[in-house]
Amino acid sequence: MTFGSRFDAISPLDARFYGGDPALYNALHPYLSEEGRVRAQAKAEAALARALAEEGLVPHAAAEAIAAAAETITAAAVYAEEARIGHDVRALVNLIRAAVPEDARRFVHLGATSMDIVDTANAWRYRECVDRVVVPRLGRLAARLIAIAEEEADSPQAGRTHGQHAVPITFGFAIAEYVDRLGGRILLVRDAARALPGKLAGAVGAYNAPALLSPDARALERRYLALLGLRPAGHSTQIVEPEGWADLAHALTTTLGVMANLADDMRQLQRTEIAEIAESFGAQQVGSSTMPQKRNPVSFENVKSIWKAYVPRIVTTYMDQISEHQRDLTNSASQRFGGELLAATAYAATRLEASLDGMRVDRERMRANLALSRGGIAAEALYVLLAKHGHGDAHEAVRRLTLDADRTGRPVVEIASHDLELRAVVGELTPQERRVIERPEEYRGLSAEVAREVAATWRRTLQEVLPV
Amino acid sequence: MTFGSRFDAISPLDARFYGGDPALYNALHPYLSEEGRVRAQAKAEAALARALAEEGLVPHAAAEAIAAAAETITAAAVYAEEARIGHDVRALVNLIRAAVPEDARRFVHLGATSMDIVDTANAWRYRECVDRVVVPRLGRLAARLIAIAEEEADSPQAGRTHGQHAVPITFGFAIAEYVDRLGGRILLVRDAARALPGKLAGAVGAYNAPALLSPDARALERRYLALLGLRPAGHSTQIVEPEGWADLAHALTTTLGVMANLADDMRQLQRTEIAEIAESFGAQQVGSSTMPQKRNPVSFENVKSIWKAYVPRIVTTYMDQISEHQRDLTNSASQRFGGELLAATAYAATRLEASLDGMRVDRERMRANLALSRGGIAAEALYVLLAKHGHGDAHEAVRRLTLDADRTGRPVVEIASHDLELRAVVGELTPQERRVIERPEEYRGLSAEVAREVAATWRRTLQEVLPV
Amino acid sequence: MTFGSRFDAISPLDARFYGGDPALYNALHPYLSEEGRVRAQAKAEAALARALAEEGLVPHAAAEAIAAAAETITAAAVYAEEARIGHDVRALVNLIRAAVPEDARRFVHLGATSMDIVDTANAWRYRECVDRVVVPRLGRLAARLIAIAEEEADSPQAGRTHGQHAVPITFGFAIAEYVDRLGGRILLVRDAARALPGKLAGAVGAYNAPALLSPDARALERRYLALLGLRPAGHSTQIVEPEGWADLAHALTTTLGVMANLADDMRQLQRTEIAEIAESFGAQQVGSSTMPQKRNPVSFENVKSIWKAYVPRIVTTYMDQISEHQRDLTNSASQRFGGELLAATAYAATRLEASLDGMRVDRERMRANLALSRGGIAAEALYVLLAKHGHGDAHEAVRRLTLDADRTGRPVVEIASHDLELRAVVGELTPQERRVIERPEEYRGLSAEVAREVAATWRRTLQEVLPV
Amino acid sequence: MTFGSRFDAISPLDARFYGGDPALYNALHPYLSEEGRVRAQAKAEAALARALAEEGLVPHAAAEAIAAAAETITAAAVYAEEARIGHDVRALVNLIRAAVPEDARRFVHLGATSMDIVDTANAWRYRECVDRVVVPRLGRLAARLIAIAEEEADSPQAGRTHGQHAVPITFGFAIAEYVDRLGGRILLVRDAARALPGKLAGAVGAYNAPALLSPDARALERRYLALLGLRPAGHSTQIVEPEGWADLAHALTTTLGVMANLADDMRQLQRTEIAEIAESFGAQQVGSSTMPQKRNPVSFENVKSIWKAYVPRIVTTYMDQISEHQRDLTNSASQRFGGELLAATAYAATRLEASLDGMRVDRERMRANLALSRGGIAAEALYVLLAKHGHGDAHEAVRRLTLDADRTGRPVVEIASHDLELRAVVGELTPQERRVIERPEEYRGLSAEVAREVAATWRRTLQEVLPV
Repeated sequence: MTFGSRFDAISPLDARFYGGDPALYNALHPYLSEEGRVRAQAKAEAALARALAEEGLVPHAAAEAIAAAAETITAAAVYAEEARIGHDVRALVNLIRAAVPEDARRFVHLGATSMDIVDTANAWRYRECVDRVVVPRLGRLAARLIAIAEEEADSPQAGRTHGQHAVPITFGFAIAEYVDRLGGRILLVRDAARALPGKLAGAVGAYNAPALLSPDARALERRYLALLGLRPAGHSTQIVEPEGWADLAHALTTTLGVMANLADDMRQLQRTEIAEIAESFGAQQVGSSTMPQKRNPVSFENVKSIWKAYVPRIVTTYMDQISEHQRDLTNSASQRFGGELLAATAYAATRLEASLDGMRVDRERMRANLALSRGGIAAEALYVLLAKHGHGDAHEAVRRLTLDADRTGRPVVEIASHDLELRAVVGELTPQERRVIERPEEYRGLSAEVAREVAATWRRTLQEVLPV
Repeated sequence: MTFGSRFDAISPLDARFYGGDPALYNALHPYLSEEGRVRAQAKAEAALARALAEEGLVPHAAAEAIAAAAETITAAAVYAEEARIGHDVRALVNLIRAAVPEDARRFVHLGATSMDIVDTANAWRYRECVDRVVVPRLGRLAARLIAIAEEEADSPQAGRTHGQHAVPITFGFAIAEYVDRLGGRILLVRDAARALPGKLAGAVGAYNAPALLSPDARALERRYLALLGLRPAGHSTQIVEPEGWADLAHALTTTLGVMANLADDMRQLQRTEIAEIAESFGAQQVGSSTMPQKRNPVSFENVKSIWKAYVPRIVTTYMDQISEHQRDLTNSASQRFGGELLAATAYAATRLEASLDGMRVDRERMRANLALSRGGIAAEALYVLLAKHGHGDAHEAVRRLTLDADRTGRPVVEIASHDLELRAVVGELTPQERRVIERPEEYRGLSAEVAREVAATWRRTLQEVLPV
Repeated sequence: MTFGSRFDAISPLDARFYGGDPALYNALHPYLSEEGRVRAQAKAEAALARALAEEGLVPHAAAEAIAAAAETITAAAVYAEEARIGHDVRALVNLIRAAVPEDARRFVHLGATSMDIVDTANAWRYRECVDRVVVPRLGRLAARLIAIAEEEADSPQAGRTHGQHAVPITFGFAIAEYVDRLGGRILLVRDAARALPGKLAGAVGAYNAPALLSPDARALERRYLALLGLRPAGHSTQIVEPEGWADLAHALTTTLGVMANLADDMRQLQRTEIAEIAESFGAQQVGSSTMPQKRNPVSFENVKSIWKAYVPRIVTTYMDQISEHQRDLTNSASQRFGGELLAATAYAATRLEASLDGMRVDRERMRANLALSRGGIAAEALYVLLAKHGHGDAHEAVRRLTLDADRTGRPVVEIASHDLELRAVVGELTPQERRVIERPEEYRGLSAEVAREVAATWRRTLQEVLPV
Repeated sequence: MTFGSRFDAISPLDARFYGGDPALYNALHPYLSEEGRVRAQAKAEAALARALAEEGLVPHAAAEAIAAAAETITAAAVYAEEARIGHDVRALVNLIRAAVPEDARRFVHLGATSMDIVDTANAWRYRECVDRVVVPRLGRLAARLIAIAEEEADSPQAGRTHGQHAVPITFGFAIAEYVDRLGGRILLVRDAARALPGKLAGAVGAYNAPALLSPDARALERRYLALLGLRPAGHSTQIVEPEGWADLAHALTTTLGVMANLADDMRQLQRTEIAEIAESFGAQQVGSSTMPQKRNPVSFENVKSIWKAYVPRIVTTYMDQISEHQRDLTNSASQRFGGELLAATAYAATRLEASLDGMRVDRERMRANLALSRGGIAAEALYVLLAKHGHGDAHEAVRRLTLDADRTGRPVVEIASHDLELRAVVGELTPQERRVIERPEEYRGLSAEVAREVAATWRRTLQEVLPV
């Protein structure tokens, strides 16, 4: 035995992120661990036996014996047999054969090629893992974001572009961005997982062996897959079409991207000079081994770092689209890494949700920061209102005003009110428009409305996904 | 002027692949060239003016003057103005302003931020380019593949896995794989392009400026976008949600992947020792500057090489998912490269279709190659049939037979017929089953049926896409 | 003709970044444009003819005729001939042949395979471009950074980790980081370019044709390459070993990474709330099409965005390491894109240097920001000094003090001075140590020394590279 | 405890490739496992204590107590403490403190920031792992390749370009390509590992804390690092300059690329139609779960697949070049994955070496395949010789001959001998030249010489690396 504990692992996913969170470990293990992988294959062998029985090709008793034997399979046993014979699926078959009565043996794996089992088992376990773990955890994150969008729908904050203050928004509006983007990704992830195809089309996809056994080899395939909640693709070779997995990998990768962007925004808002939010921090928690005062946004940083680790790996998936003729095996080892992406997504969602859970929002600081830019904010509003009320070149006029304002330190509006050319147009503003110029920090457009509507839309759309 | 001809370009896309194919150049230029990019932005300004007029915020005459002026805009003029003022969209606005009557000037770009124009124009031109150029060219490729799948539905060929002969297929079945995979990608590309969102939500996405102008800023946005056949996303910041483009980039990248796989298979089938197909070759064409006899699969190689060049670039798209707060500009230059992916896909489809057009299929050679592996093919069939007829450990029995066959050079079937243990089971085979063992090259399962059905399915599904 | 101007290009590199900067265009064009590429190949043909003459295999007059003809070659002519015969290098050969006296014709390209010309010409033009354009422009950037490191060696600034104030540095120290990292990369880029191998080893690398001509084919190869300042690798196939280019691509990609990191830091320091530096801004320059007051860090953002666009492309280079047997052509199109990386590096260096040139450093603001964190800074110093003077658990003691400080708003040092347990140890501090606690903003370690030494080291090491 | 065995892991590296090979596991575990990672950090703490003692800042007895305590540290204990306090390095420090006499406690970690330990420990363990495991295993592979290059230096084989026969080589020459490329990579890997810098420069790299303790903080740093065989970089922030690791990652990634190319060539040579080599195959080994006859090149396929899995990950490394200001933590999780690349390289080298060890070379088949292309091979030789002997347009003349040969099935040479125009020049060939035309399969240039010289060169250059 090479492993005694998770600390023997090289992958930090195993040693630290998945291995270090017992709840996540228990949730993912049945689908993504090597043990789960092997058991899913055994489950596929069971489904195959039953499908053969339903088609009248195998006695029901034999099929049930096989299914029962499949339940006893362990990864350790399969690996031991593989060490002897050099083939992993045949090792699994040998073990099932050894555990059934002699007259059932010949029905084990009958008509199937290895990949009829492997690809189908992967489709099943990835679909299950997405439905039961990944999407629910993304749903919890979405629910948290929806709640913040609603709570902070009216909290004024500086809108920022290029790191510079632009015009006002509310913090709820800023969070609503992530509600909408994450919501869309959740649906894509779910649908991509549910579209993963399985197969029972034999060694080169042309049903050579199945057609020897069954007068309708494709009906047999549909039956086999239906027992696992799956469907065949329009065409298979030795393997299923790789685009199913590629679509899921894309959905997961872009989901990580949305989470990374959110995490990045949150950590930037914690900068010493900005300090609009603060990540939760335990009473015993140490921020730095040398700077005792530090309170770092480590969870948000961690989520972005996980994204960095996983996003480039999708290129492996794209490389695995190429398989020579009816298949070469240069995608075998590389595809084994697929489960890591599901685990990373589930982990990041969990970490991010926990981090947002304890996050403090400092509304006073948001207001104070916003106040830094009253003049600039007024500039856009003034330009638009001057144009609305008939000024022919308002952008240039106001741009020059802002240079004056920079030079003199006087507010843009004040300069405008004394400007001979502008005075007349300024005089035509309605009281409400004038108020925007005088209290530019309230020039927040539809921030609150959008925040609430986005929250409401996704609360409804994600109904089945959000925690009750 | 820095450029006098395409040979001044650094990018081989410009200098060689797009610039070197006048038909492709003419098709893509309106959407993907820098000229096309600028004109699409002018078109968006025109749509904005008209939408403002429809909402009663701008006189119709002014809107039409703006729209007319927008038609006269050239990239050269915009770049010249940008050189003066340092802002590309403001440069465009200045030029339109200069070309309209004075009382229309203030309505140009009214209420919009630059990205309301840029992102919307990109959505429009990418959608148009996909609908009018990329998908039709993929459709022509699909049509060619459908035709080959049908013509060669019954042409026997060795199925190959791991580069080794496995069991037989037909060449039409092999091609049907690509019909099915490409068909699915075409639909995905089309749908992703049609889902690209536009926006008119202002500098930070909260409709700050539009809401100063219009009592229903979102109605104004919908009207603006509808004039370009677009829709808004659920939420915008200064920019549209990046996932729309990411989904299209994924669709295009995986389409390139399918084409690269096809190209790879075709070039491997041209190996000197295999020689089952041959790329077309012009009478004057030179294969090598030093080996006058060479006939290389250069078009197929080229398509794979284009894939190599473009597939990693999707990581840029994934990186561009991250934009700080309501936007930072670190995705500005990088997003300008997006059009290259559309061009590369259109180019590869065109090149591949042309290459398949002239391809010669050598059915005799396919048969001859298939005959090399009669024994091996028989092995799988024999194993399945022995198991079907009651042998308890047929796989192992046949595996041992093949070792004998290797050693003695005798056919597997012959050894089986003389084997004391197997003789009885062999005796139970039906005549049709026996025929498979005796003529293993006909053991091709449902190859022909699948080839024809896949072809028929996609001929129907892609009806609107395939050339008439 | 498909191109009339740079605005017909799709690649933004061509249309905007390289095409839009006449000085950069003129510098790069001879090496990286398609015209430059073709001319470099003609130059290689000239070198080949002369090498053959030096070895006595070709009359000198014929060699000189060939060399003279090679100087007249244009890309347009080569492409026209390629359109006829379908082979680019043979097209070049035909044109040279047509331009020399009849008795010299047979010596054109004699003994060479296309890639003897193509790979050698690429090595030559990339090496020249690096030596003459890329490295000098990186050198100018390095010189600018060295100057800032020296000028700001004593300007106090908050050191920042996790976006939080940590302990003080000086701005010169912060810049010195980039002097050191960039300096190392410049040497790597230069050495990698100078190590690019050429070849004259024939169609499969075994000198088949050259050995028919020359009794010492490898001497001929060395002579050919020496005329271009190149050397052969230890082994070639049809192509040079791909690792030479991979090493250069890595060197350039990591150089972009260093520049992107610098740009990222600079744009973050321009945040409204931080405002320690400001990018230069023209008097006519427009910051936003709708927010007239905006002054955005667009050049720094641009450099990071260029990095995003180019860094993933190195995966293409790594994919191109794989070429079947003595070569397949699936790396042909993809390798044509190599020049873009050199151009992008030169462009980014130029843009970044210009941006730093006009950058204003606000030392007052740096001091003011630093003052925000006096307490935190004191915490680390206090912890280290308490430990030094004998406190057994200083980190934990100070960590608890900072929680008190957070709660009460009193300075850490003040709390420490009144703490019964700590009072005694605090009393043992030397006057200089006490000063650090009392004026924590001066706790800047060796910032100034390191800044100056790093600057001096690289001023010396890069002597040949820095502008005079 | 979450893990009981390797089958609980998600990463196939842990579960299968590293975890499944006890010898590799034992070799890598001390450096790359999480246990090894933590112990390397403890080792760095020991070195720090000793360096402080050497500088007279800590009593020697205390330093030795710390060093002794550091030896007892386990990952499990550190993780348990981290769970309590939320900081991994502080957890390590607490454990060491708890294991030393009270008066030594305050000297643990004195003056260091976490990354002074973490980055230094990583440099140490990666350097050790490369020197002790990765390079020796690459050396064994190189030795195997050198042996094959020598053994097969004279074995004729078809040179192949574009998958087509070109002109002859020898198999030893083909293998020598990989000797040369791999040899160069081994040196690069070794040098890059030995150049990895460590640091003791404190929280922001400016030696703030160390300078409070020591009058020459940089001497202290050098002493600390020297105890681990390391050196500082010219500048550090909180972290070491990222380019050191990037250079090592590049070296390893390109080493994987060389191995993948070799593996690809070997598996292609095993195609049924080519069959020039065969991977070793165990007597009990099963090739396919359904096709009992299959003998697949699974090890070669596996090596290429590992390359697919790891090559894109270098983009993570390039992304980690960017860290804000004196560091943000978004590279923390992502950098933890670095060890996987070392493990993957060691694994691939081991697998490939084993596979080559049992490889059978079928020289007869190589000759037979080569014979397929006599005519084509003669074409190049004929063209070169005709040109040498004065024909003015030999390439075109021979190109036309090959079209005739294609049409008539007659050998090129025969057609040439009867051609009115060519007859005369053909008559001038020397006997040796004529022999090349008549026995074109012997037209192999310097294949044998190059194979032997490359082998000899690297046998010498890699002397310290090759197994004795």
